Amino acid sequence: MRKVRVGMIGHSFPGRVHSQAYRDLLAHSRIGIEPVMQTIVGRRENEVKLAAEELGWLSYETDWRRLIERDDIDIIDIGTPVSLHREIAVAAAEAGKHIICSSPLAGSKAEAEKIWRSARKAGVVHMVPYPLRYMPAVRYARKIVNDGLLGDIYHFRAQCCPKSNDRLGTSSKRELLEDLLAHSIDLGRNLIGEIQEAVGMKDSTECPVGSMNGTTTSPHEEKISPPNENSSCESMNTALTALVRFDNGIIGIFEVSQLGKGFHRSNLIEINGNKGSLRLDLEELNTVRLCLQDPVTGKGEFRNIDCSDYEAPGDELRKLAGKKSGYEQAFVYLMHEFMRGIHENACPSPNFEDGYKNRVLLDAIKRSAKTRTWLKIG
Amino acid sequence: MRKVRVGMIGHSFPGRVHSQAYRDLLAHSRIGIEPVMQTIVGRRENEVKLAAEELGWLSYETDWRRLIERDDIDIIDIGTPVSLHREIAVAAAEAGKHIICSSPLAGSKAEAEKIWRSARKAGVVHMVPYPLRYMPAVRYARKIVNDGLLGDIYHFRAQCCPKSNDRLGTSSKRELLEDLLAHSIDLGRNLIGEIQEAVGMKDSTECPVGSMNGTTTSPHEEKISPPNENSSCESMNTALTALVRFDNGIIGIFEVSQLGKGFHRSNLIEINGNKGSLRLDLEELNTVRLCLQDPVTGKGEFRNIDCSDYEAPGDELRKLAGKKSGYEQAFVYLMHEFMRGIHENACPSPNFEDGYKNRVLLDAIKRSAKTRTWLKIG
Amino acid sequence: MRKVRVGMIGHSFPGRVHSQAYRDLLAHSRIGIEPVMQTIVGRRENEVKLAAEELGWLSYETDWRRLIERDDIDIIDIGTPVSLHREIAVAAAEAGKHIICSSPLAGSKAEAEKIWRSARKAGVVHMVPYPLRYMPAVRYARKIVNDGLLGDIYHFRAQCCPKSNDRLGTSSKRELLEDLLAHSIDLGRNLIGEIQEAVGMKDSTECPVGSMNGTTTSPHEEKISPPNENSSCESMNTALTALVRFDNGIIGIFEVSQLGKGFHRSNLIEINGNKGSLRLDLEELNTVRLCLQDPVTGKGEFRNIDCSDYEAPGDELRKLAGKKSGYEQAFVYLMHEFMRGIHENACPSPNFEDGYKNRVLLDAIKRSAKTRTWLKIG
Amino acid sequence: MRKVRVGMIGHSFPGRVHSQAYRDLLAHSRIGIEPVMQTIVGRRENEVKLAAEELGWLSYETDWRRLIERDDIDIIDIGTPVSLHREIAVAAAEAGKHIICSSPLAGSKAEAEKIWRSARKAGVVHMVPYPLRYMPAVRYARKIVNDGLLGDIYHFRAQCCPKSNDRLGTSSKRELLEDLLAHSIDLGRNLIGEIQEAVGMKDSTECPVGSMNGTTTSPHEEKISPPNENSSCESMNTALTALVRFDNGIIGIFEVSQLGKGFHRSNLIEINGNKGSLRLDLEELNTVRLCLQDPVTGKGEFRNIDCSDYEAPGDELRKLAGKKSGYEQAFVYLMHEFMRGIHENACPSPNFEDGYKNRVLLDAIKRSAKTRTWLKIG
Repeated sequence: MRKVRVGMIGHSFPGRVHSQAYRDLLAHSRIGIEPVMQTIVGRRENEVKLAAEELGWLSYETDWRRLIERDDIDIIDIGTPVSLHREIAVAAAEAGKHIICSSPLAGSKAEAEKIWRSARKAGVVHMVPYPLRYMPAVRYARKIVNDGLLGDIYHFRAQCCPKSNDRLGTSSKRELLEDLLAHSIDLGRNLIGEIQEAVGMKDSTECPVGSMNGTTTSPHEEKISPPNENSSCESMNTALTALVRFDNGIIGIFEVSQLGKGFHRSNLIEINGNKGSLRLDLEELNTVRLCLQDPVTGKGEFRNIDCSDYEAPGDELRKLAGKKSGYEQAFVYLMHEFMRGIHENACPSPNFEDGYKNRVLLDAIKRSAKTRTWLKIG
Repeated sequence: MRKVRVGMIGHSFPGRVHSQAYRDLLAHSRIGIEPVMQTIVGRRENEVKLAAEELGWLSYETDWRRLIERDDIDIIDIGTPVSLHREIAVAAAEAGKHIICSSPLAGSKAEAEKIWRSARKAGVVHMVPYPLRYMPAVRYARKIVNDGLLGDIYHFRAQCCPKSNDRLGTSSKRELLEDLLAHSIDLGRNLIGEIQEAVGMKDSTECPVGSMNGTTTSPHEEKISPPNENSSCESMNTALTALVRFDNGIIGIFEVSQLGKGFHRSNLIEINGNKGSLRLDLEELNTVRLCLQDPVTGKGEFRNIDCSDYEAPGDELRKLAGKKSGYEQAFVYLMHEFMRGIHENACPSPNFEDGYKNRVLLDAIKRSAKTRTWLKIG
Repeated sequence: MRKVRVGMIGHSFPGRVHSQAYRDLLAHSRIGIEPVMQTIVGRRENEVKLAAEELGWLSYETDWRRLIERDDIDIIDIGTPVSLHREIAVAAAEAGKHIICSSPLAGSKAEAEKIWRSARKAGVVHMVPYPLRYMPAVRYARKIVNDGLLGDIYHFRAQCCPKSNDRLGTSSKRELLEDLLAHSIDLGRNLIGEIQEAVGMKDSTECPVGSMNGTTTSPHEEKISPPNENSSCESMNTALTALVRFDNGIIGIFEVSQLGKGFHRSNLIEINGNKGSLRLDLEELNTVRLCLQDPVTGKGEFRNIDCSDYEAPGDELRKLAGKKSGYEQAFVYLMHEFMRGIHENACPSPNFEDGYKNRVLLDAIKRSAKTRTWLKIG
Repeated sequence: MRKVRVGMIGHSFPGRVHSQAYRDLLAHSRIGIEPVMQTIVGRRENEVKLAAEELGWLSYETDWRRLIERDDIDIIDIGTPVSLHREIAVAAAEAGKHIICSSPLAGSKAEAEKIWRSARKAGVVHMVPYPLRYMPAVRYARKIVNDGLLGDIYHFRAQCCPKSNDRLGTSSKRELLEDLLAHSIDLGRNLIGEIQEAVGMKDSTECPVGSMNGTTTSPHEEKISPPNENSSCESMNTALTALVRFDNGIIGIFEVSQLGKGFHRSNLIEINGNKGSLRLDLEELNTVRLCLQDPVTGKGEFRNIDCSDYEAPGDELRKLAGKKSGYEQAFVYLMHEFMRGIHENACPSPNFEDGYKNRVLLDAIKRSAKTRTWLKIG
């Protein structure tokens, strides 16, 4: 069995879920590649030593540059803060390592482009692991769409809210919303196609919006004055909305907002076509809500489809038949596709191109929210 | 008990439901006014005679002008096609009759304004019976909003689809969508407040939008060429979307579309605030989905609130305790408010001003879908 | 049009809903019989006079015997307390009046049998208006069962709870549960068939059942000692459960209990067959939850079927297309069937035979809960 | 860190999920014991060699007896067919190994008792891994019950159906149902308490039960004649129902049946008390449906509680905050408790005593279905 040696940089959230995927891969994948958990990198020795033991890595390092120099590493797995992505990814590509880099790929369009260009030039296999694409429900939804069961699609909607206990500082609240929007954009591109134009709207105000009880303040979108002392109000009412048109003419609506929807993370996708409709709540990983129009009566009703049994043709995954997958399971599927890419020397989905395009769209939406105009993409 | 004598023009859908409301009013209302079902008007004598018998009217006429001349009629109930509203309503107002006129009040802003002005000038009581306002779930939702249970509201959404068996000709399909949008606008104004600006989007194309199978045609929004032969495609993909900002700064999204949502009429309302969220499916007349944030944990979950028991303070309605209301019941509540208006010589809600304002907004949304710009209202 | 003159005895709950059905019948029924609301009877003149005015009756009486003597009355509608049913119904039958008598038909098997026998002997048309049979969802469920869509049925379940605000004295709590069970039994007989044997269980105790916190008291089902001072505990824990076998071998489970299920009235029916399953929540009057097994995959999922459009073949009802019915609407359908019975001189469903058989079953279940044995029915 | 060396017998379903739990344990558990995946046993060398590689075992054997003799094995994990449990478990206990043995513990009460006795005598730590106890929703439900949030509990219900694609031979269909019932019984005992008496009913017939279309055959429960040629019918209609009374007086209803409930595995639990109700659908691993009665209004509505965040006090598990767990995750929790047991030399829950008691109850229910009488347990 072919072995590929992994060096992972970081042991926070991405490091933990990727480690589990490496550990469990061989029990679930029939690709025929075994990832060897060679080395994990962390800055503080005591912490990275413990992480290596808990997560199952054979050794550890404290300097990521050392990792890239080593000959016994085939894959660099980047789970660091975004600000380090460009430097590490470019170095890894130039050293000829395959790369998996956590989303978002980069903090700006320029950096994302540079990373993507480096990987292409080096000819290495690359992936940005947007996990939603690999949830059982999303994989099944993609099949429904691609098989044409919904007929001609004319409408896509994504609504997303963070959880009430995603408690972050004001600046990172904005980053959180943007990150959620990037994940929704990625799903829209994956399920429907590329986007040609967009208009964004900040559903937010720098000061309290109208209470129903009387005194209301009119919102100023381009306020120049110093930030409001009542800093909590800004974060409370933050939201981003975008209307888009896909290349194929389909209309899309994206919404992320700080509040509402049960004060729990909700992540809703809706796809409407002339023969059927489909809904996903991405907090229910294994269920698609599907409505197909009866060709005779013209009626249809939504049903909950349990997707835990679904296996894509040729996916070579070994699943527990009929058992519900958890969040971590999506990373096994992702890693399986990454290994397939390495095995077949072909870029898996989603890759750095997706990371770049999602960044471009996000920036365009934010810009158009200021200009209040539709903007062409790309 | 004070008696008021009703003359009704028309015996199609509005005539039937209004007749039931008149018949059942005294069993449910404690206002102390008894509507006498004096005369019903229809053009064809054999049909209106039968309708009088079935619906419980004491007599019938075949010319609405005759009705307005009569001294024994206090109320004119207009259930005719929209094109006749202006002529009848103005004549009724000038004759000093109280008026209830089916929605939409008029086919244009100018006509709606004329009707409203006539009624005001004559000092008569007037109503446009938007029945959604009187569904048990909406009445209860209004109380929740007004009591401040949702905290500061920042977001309103209305989504509406006709039923698959609302099968109409191409022109009336457009009218149907516009009518549905008017009902949603009315609810938005009723629950949240007046609207200051809007941008509309026709989510529709004159020709098929993208199938997922390859060939796609780019849409032309301002097509001048003659209508497509494939006339079915136009109607299939029609939709109207609008983003609005309410006077109090709250953001609103309105969507009506021809397809999707289970191929059944669906009529969803969502209101989000910083202390809670509320959802209505107006096909479930007696249920509010409510989520209130726990002040300690910051969490909340949606619950289905059965509103069939709800009685507004001082509404003087006699309900069947705990029994679910049907569609017709909303008209009893509407008529009860109309009778209260006559009794107290005060305009009930919703009235001709609402009919006018809803028309103005609908026209602005359609216009901005062509100009692709935000438009100020009023 | 044939006219039949109704005399109604009582103006509490049954009187109010029956009055609405009489008022609205002609607008919804094409049978061709017009019920004339001739006279209403109440003991206290001031109250019955007001009721006549509010509910639309032409005249009133204070003595029910006077009503039965009159020649201008064709139908006696009995809406009195159960204790009066036998005397009134037998007198009405002997006077040759058609009879509609509120459920339960009688307080004992002997009385129910006497009433049924009198009506049969007199050859009059009779009905016990169990309204559940006429809810849109139940009418549609009956069609699904009768059309064989569920395949061979093997299991029926009914679960029912009163609402938390059905606040009654201790004795009437027991009556309430028994009445709810009688309604469930009637539905079981209507949807599945006659019942051949049953074993009942009182899920209740005269004293508090086990708390999870430690001290528990063992229950005594046949306690002879005087009633517990803590009278609230008895009513709190009352429940009746029965296992039955229908004539066709199908298994049934009936449960009514004082608590649980959301502290709201719930009334659930479940029918399972080898090709499909069906669920009703009778608080959702217009919806059937249906699951049909796909013949190829062997899978199936539940869908919510909107039954508000459903019209049984030949039912000659005029409905508001696609509008949701309320509780009162079921009585229009019931009365329509009663009128059809009178028109065709045939007993409608459900009739006094059903009232008798439901009583017999209820008594058997209660008896077997004491004997702790299975009992044969009939 | 203390290391314990595991020898696992079998590499089918239990072997696969237990292997994943061993691999992932250290990443999720803070107990401080590391399970070393020493040796896996399978009869066919080529298969067990591959399994060792895929599942992460250091070595393999083909004879389980060899494993028990070895000094470098601390734990025996039994994942063989039930018929081998007794022999292996007794040998392992006598060799002083800790034991985890798949459910059901044994095929008969006598064997189960022998296994339990051996383990107790040897003083080893033992577990029967009923995974339902460790689903996030069940763990949270147990906390709700134990905290008294439901008040005095009076009613427990468990309903369970296998999936339509659990396609097995006729004999194993019966075993499947019995196994499902054992899992429900275990949950009932875990959530409510021990059971004092039960009456079972086989809701099944050896021949087709009534179709609604006419010809029906009366069922014979104790049929002696040879099995029906139409062998599919037997399996189709198999079901087991039991009424029980718990030691604390609480009433319980258990149902498992071959059909119905959406033709998918469903596993519903309902607990009703005088202050609240709780529902679990064990196919939704992370959600509790909870209804708590408002102390003022007496009303309550069901809410979906997301339990993915829940951590029991002192459970020392490291979870992915707010991420939904899958089926495999329950085994990590189970194994964590087994390791805690070994660490503290205390028997974890559930253990061989539970395996024995569940067997006793299952046998009593089957016997009482033949005698048609209530039976005392234990």
